[in-house]
Amino acid sequence: MATLKGNCLVAQSGGPTSVINASACGVIQEAFKSGEIDQVYAALHGVYGILNEDLFLFNDESPEEIELMKVTPASALGSCRYKLKSIEAGEADYRRIIDVFEAHNIRYFFYIGGNDSMDTANKVSQYAQRVGYELRAIGVPKTIDNDLPITDHTPGFGSTAKFIATSIKEVGLDARVYDYPTVTICELMGRNAGWITAASALAKDFEDDAPHFIYLPEVPFSLEKFGEDIKAAIEKYNYAVVAVSEGIKTADGKYISELCDPNAVKDAFGHVQLGGASEVLQNYISQNVCKKVRIVNYSSIQRCAAHWASLTDNEESFMCGQMAVRYAIDGHTGKMVGMSRGKGKEYECETQLIDLDDVANKEKTIPAEWINEEGNFIKQPLIDYIRPLVMGEVKIRMENGLPRYARLHKKLVEKRLGKWNEK
Amino acid sequence: MATLKGNCLVAQSGGPTSVINASACGVIQEAFKSGEIDQVYAALHGVYGILNEDLFLFNDESPEEIELMKVTPASALGSCRYKLKSIEAGEADYRRIIDVFEAHNIRYFFYIGGNDSMDTANKVSQYAQRVGYELRAIGVPKTIDNDLPITDHTPGFGSTAKFIATSIKEVGLDARVYDYPTVTICELMGRNAGWITAASALAKDFEDDAPHFIYLPEVPFSLEKFGEDIKAAIEKYNYAVVAVSEGIKTADGKYISELCDPNAVKDAFGHVQLGGASEVLQNYISQNVCKKVRIVNYSSIQRCAAHWASLTDNEESFMCGQMAVRYAIDGHTGKMVGMSRGKGKEYECETQLIDLDDVANKEKTIPAEWINEEGNFIKQPLIDYIRPLVMGEVKIRMENGLPRYARLHKKLVEKRLGKWNEK
Repeated sequence: MATLKGNCLVAQSGGPTSVINASACGVIQEAFKSGEIDQVYAALHGVYGILNEDLFLFNDESPEEIELMKVTPASALGSCRYKLKSIEAGEADYRRIIDVFEAHNIRYFFYIGGNDSMDTANKVSQYAQRVGYELRAIGVPKTIDNDLPITDHTPGFGSTAKFIATSIKEVGLDARVYDYPTVTICELMGRNAGWITAASALAKDFEDDAPHFIYLPEVPFSLEKFGEDIKAAIEKYNYAVVAVSEGIKTADGKYISELCDPNAVKDAFGHVQLGGASEVLQNYISQNVCKKVRIVNYSSIQRCAAHWASLTDNEESFMCGQMAVRYAIDGHTGKMVGMSRGKGKEYECETQLIDLDDVANKEKTIPAEWINEEGNFIKQPLIDYIRPLVMGEVKIRMENGLPRYARLHKKLVEKRLGKWNEK
Repeated sequence: MATLKGNCLVAQSGGPTSVINASACGVIQEAFKSGEIDQVYAALHGVYGILNEDLFLFNDESPEEIELMKVTPASALGSCRYKLKSIEAGEADYRRIIDVFEAHNIRYFFYIGGNDSMDTANKVSQYAQRVGYELRAIGVPKTIDNDLPITDHTPGFGSTAKFIATSIKEVGLDARVYDYPTVTICELMGRNAGWITAASALAKDFEDDAPHFIYLPEVPFSLEKFGEDIKAAIEKYNYAVVAVSEGIKTADGKYISELCDPNAVKDAFGHVQLGGASEVLQNYISQNVCKKVRIVNYSSIQRCAAHWASLTDNEESFMCGQMAVRYAIDGHTGKMVGMSRGKGKEYECETQLIDLDDVANKEKTIPAEWINEEGNFIKQPLIDYIRPLVMGEVKIRMENGLPRYARLHKKLVEKRLGKWNEK
């Protein structure tokens, strides 16, 4: 493959994670090292920033702050939920992206994000080929939800899993101190996939430890069965702690949270805005089983707890960023950097190339054989799958008793094109 | 003072913290070292366990697990919310406590807890004197709320402050990534005192950092002013993150959470069960100012996050336990171990003895001079007061990627008395 000299652009999209900046840092530092790439651009707020030509240069940022990005949570470049239409329906957006790339001689495009972002990277790569603009576009996965197909797991999941398992261990100790029965409902993210909720099982060393039950979106949810489970746990242990996915649904496919709020809002991708499942469960339990019910909703805490990130996840996320650059320089485009787990007894992980066509807009959920018969807990092989991903702790730079996270200048470069007219 | 040979009993009460077991560990290890104390008893579930004669011995627990208690969150001995009446109204309970103490030759009583527990320790000490039972009762303070009077601060507060400031720094980074306006409402504990909520200010290094506003129970709350504040922050920064106390009240003394739930439940101490303030604020903001409003309710996460405890708080909590034993052996009773801050530039802290009469059932709130004129943020001297309390990190023993916390056998000792008849 002929070398391709030019600039690169890195951008982030979708929900933040504890390690999405570690991936960006991998891209940036590897690009500087590569010898092929001149300027390292970033777009503010993902593809939306490209369309607006809101770009800044990592050449202008201090290497120390770039290094700090490795352990800084949330999308340092800004994120967006802007959804590109199909090329047929919204060609003007694609034309504009190529115009912006051309104006800044951007020949490498690294898009860090989840399912929707991989779709965007794929379409941009396809459109560039169609119009004959030489571009290498590589997707770098990121999602705490762990719901991308083919790749063994996704950067971001291990850190959320570690924080959640730790915190539910702690909340479990907190919940069991009283002499009267209590119920604690821990609500977790993950949309239609239960990986994060499943990770709570790592907190449990003994039968009486939290969590006592785990409710996944992969299993139809019944309020009555839930009530019976809680009753049984209280009779045995005098307390019950359960982990519940925000996306649990009834057998007829209704989100539990919708039972509470019939006017659930949809986001720009047509996804229902979830949340509120716990309140429905709390009402049911306090009326039917036990009066003392506490909700612990991990909300955005679970996706940005970089102070307790997994070292394994952190290093792998960085590696995915690095490898994206190497793959692109090797001539690849339209691919995602995936992760492949070794077959040996000791955990090993290396990157692999996955066609973006095969991952865009697809969801990987928990296989049925990893869920128990009753549908209210997970089986050992799933714990064995998650465990290596939470190993190790990240060293955080502390200042005045708190983490010192990266702070970028993000000085926008002068625009070379006219204003973009958003349709 | 004549030496007093006999056994001791340690118990915990009230809400758990990250370091309440560090204090217990201080009591236990110092008691074993003392030479004066023979058996180290614990009561399960505080005073309720004493009344039921549910006791176990730390002489039967492994020293390694006792050492691990130093970093284990939540009340390892169990807690209770059982409220002793006045001696006049409920003498039978006091008689029973002394009977249990006498049956096991317990001459030292260490009660670790908050305001209500200090009241209990005080009354037990007074009753023992009245009936001529030689007993030394010392209160060891513990409350994340930091609302005990006279003592400079309370064990437990520093760790919650460190976790909350860290997490709000992270949630603040998470909240600012989008290209559209968002509002994040972080709800914090503390009852009628705003210390925990105030600690969120430590997260802010620059004007645009979270939190943008802080709403304390010490300041009458107005929904309209709140809406104006949020609007101003969104105009300036395109996002707003606020820290709100669960106990904020309107000018006429109504809890904001009660505006939502008129059937608020009261606990055994007659305290209103708080929570729900955020939902009222969320509704108001989404209807009047900004549609995207996320609630981050720290619920019990904030009081048991031992994985991110403050080393200063941890060491001071242990010291309070140790000193309780030394003060008791020196002959004191009816006292609480308080903390006194040195006047020098470098932070220093030593213990002091405080009359339980002076602390029982009293609350210390934030002085008006530490709150800004607008009543929506705190002033630098309050940050300077909190900062030393969050310094340093505790070393956690890790096992399989997660904290390994203490696990006690708690094998109950044989009962020597008949069953207690709870009235």
